[in-house]
Amino acid sequence: MLTTTAHYAYDTDTANTRVAEHEYALDLSDRWHTPAGIANGGYLLASTLRALHRDMAQPDLLVASAHYLRPGTAGPARVRTEAIRAGRRTATGQASLFRDEREILRVLATFTDLSTAAGPTSITGRAPDLPAPEECTDPLAAGLELPPIARRVQTRMPKVPGFLRGEPGGTSANEFWLRFADGRDADPIALAMLVDSTLPAVFDLGTVPASATVELTVHIRNRPAPGWLACRVATRYLIDGYHEEDFEIWDSTGTLVAQSRQLSLIP
Amino acid sequence: MLTTTAHYAYDTDTANTRVAEHEYALDLSDRWHTPAGIANGGYLLASTLRALHRDMAQPDLLVASAHYLRPGTAGPARVRTEAIRAGRRTATGQASLFRDEREILRVLATFTDLSTAAGPTSITGRAPDLPAPEECTDPLAAGLELPPIARRVQTRMPKVPGFLRGEPGGTSANEFWLRFADGRDADPIALAMLVDSTLPAVFDLGTVPASATVELTVHIRNRPAPGWLACRVATRYLIDGYHEEDFEIWDSTGTLVAQSRQLSLIP
Repeated sequence: MLTTTAHYAYDTDTANTRVAEHEYALDLSDRWHTPAGIANGGYLLASTLRALHRDMAQPDLLVASAHYLRPGTAGPARVRTEAIRAGRRTATGQASLFRDEREILRVLATFTDLSTAAGPTSITGRAPDLPAPEECTDPLAAGLELPPIARRVQTRMPKVPGFLRGEPGGTSANEFWLRFADGRDADPIALAMLVDSTLPAVFDLGTVPASATVELTVHIRNRPAPGWLACRVATRYLIDGYHEEDFEIWDSTGTLVAQSRQLSLIP
Repeated sequence: MLTTTAHYAYDTDTANTRVAEHEYALDLSDRWHTPAGIANGGYLLASTLRALHRDMAQPDLLVASAHYLRPGTAGPARVRTEAIRAGRRTATGQASLFRDEREILRVLATFTDLSTAAGPTSITGRAPDLPAPEECTDPLAAGLELPPIARRVQTRMPKVPGFLRGEPGGTSANEFWLRFADGRDADPIALAMLVDSTLPAVFDLGTVPASATVELTVHIRNRPAPGWLACRVATRYLIDGYHEEDFEIWDSTGTLVAQSRQLSLIP
């Protein structure tokens, strides 16, 4: 059993060092590469947000909007941050991720203290209705060759999408369990990574299995409880290659913790 | 019948003048004020995007992400822009809207040429199934005192939400027609305004009738055809005052043209 967060792959691989005011050095790892051999977009986002978080006077990520400019690769990188506004309830900042002096990601993010949120609650959506993780299938256990990120983020699925068996089923929606493979529990910034950590739902439509994120926005709705996370993903509108992907994450207590939407392009 | 765009309220009230490289002057109008007596968030966004658009080498807005920093009021304002990256297919920029030297809105936006988009199409969502606009009700025609924006943006509803009659119905979802009141047709940047131009769906839950946008992201999926726009709005998760609002706009040919989500807070 690992006992310090420094031993979890996510913590090690998203860590940064302050090198100047509003400037952080980090080392992007190849352990989060996708099947395309580039850094996962969620991994780039969480790495950038961890640096920005150091300049924000609020403890929790509330909402982040990221525009992806160039593919990310492993190696030394810099994050430059700007504190835009710090109010009583929220703090907003901006961060840019650079690799070889080229900007690959620009993010706007607003932080708050989720523990002090107070106001009315009314929920009409529902948590995914999933069998226990032990009763579900590990869709990548069947001897497939795994991309690095699939060794870091685990899923358990009641129904394995057809495209993972080479037979696209034509349904760009799915529900499943998700967690870090080494048992690290999620936090708000880690959720911003996890909403973009699984294979795109659109692949089951039989498209070319490649999808480039143009923009991703994630809302954090609660601090997540420890344990497996229940997820719901759907793409409803694939138009001329562009498609949205909506992703919800619910924690082990049945609470909605993250809601994201990204706009992506099949090249 | 108005014949030049300069006579439409939207064009006049979102216009800008270049005063320096990457700096534009504009005059925010009180004609788009909300019931709270402040500038509508969609109006601020479209005004900012029109300035940024001048520095972008692509014709169409594709996606904009806006973080709202302070309430906007009528009067002279500035937009400062930055061209972040211009690629073959997309151009990404950033803009800040200032009023009295205070930043009230920061936006990241990516532009493209929607007419050249080419790739697979697969649609599982459907356009709202609405009676013709003439068979619907103008929910604000019943002698209510109208906020300025309701004189600029018209709706036609098959079913008027209860809260507009003072009896919240408890359903935070609705479908209706929308257009500029003076007959101006929409374009991609105008769609970024229209997704935030109607009263929040959450009001029908009987909350305090006030909602402040923290962040809004809009995806433009097609250039809109002229005429009435069919809209679908829904809020599914109101948690401690924070709530998402999802908004779709379909044009008069039944094509999805815009999809937005905002995170807002009931104060």
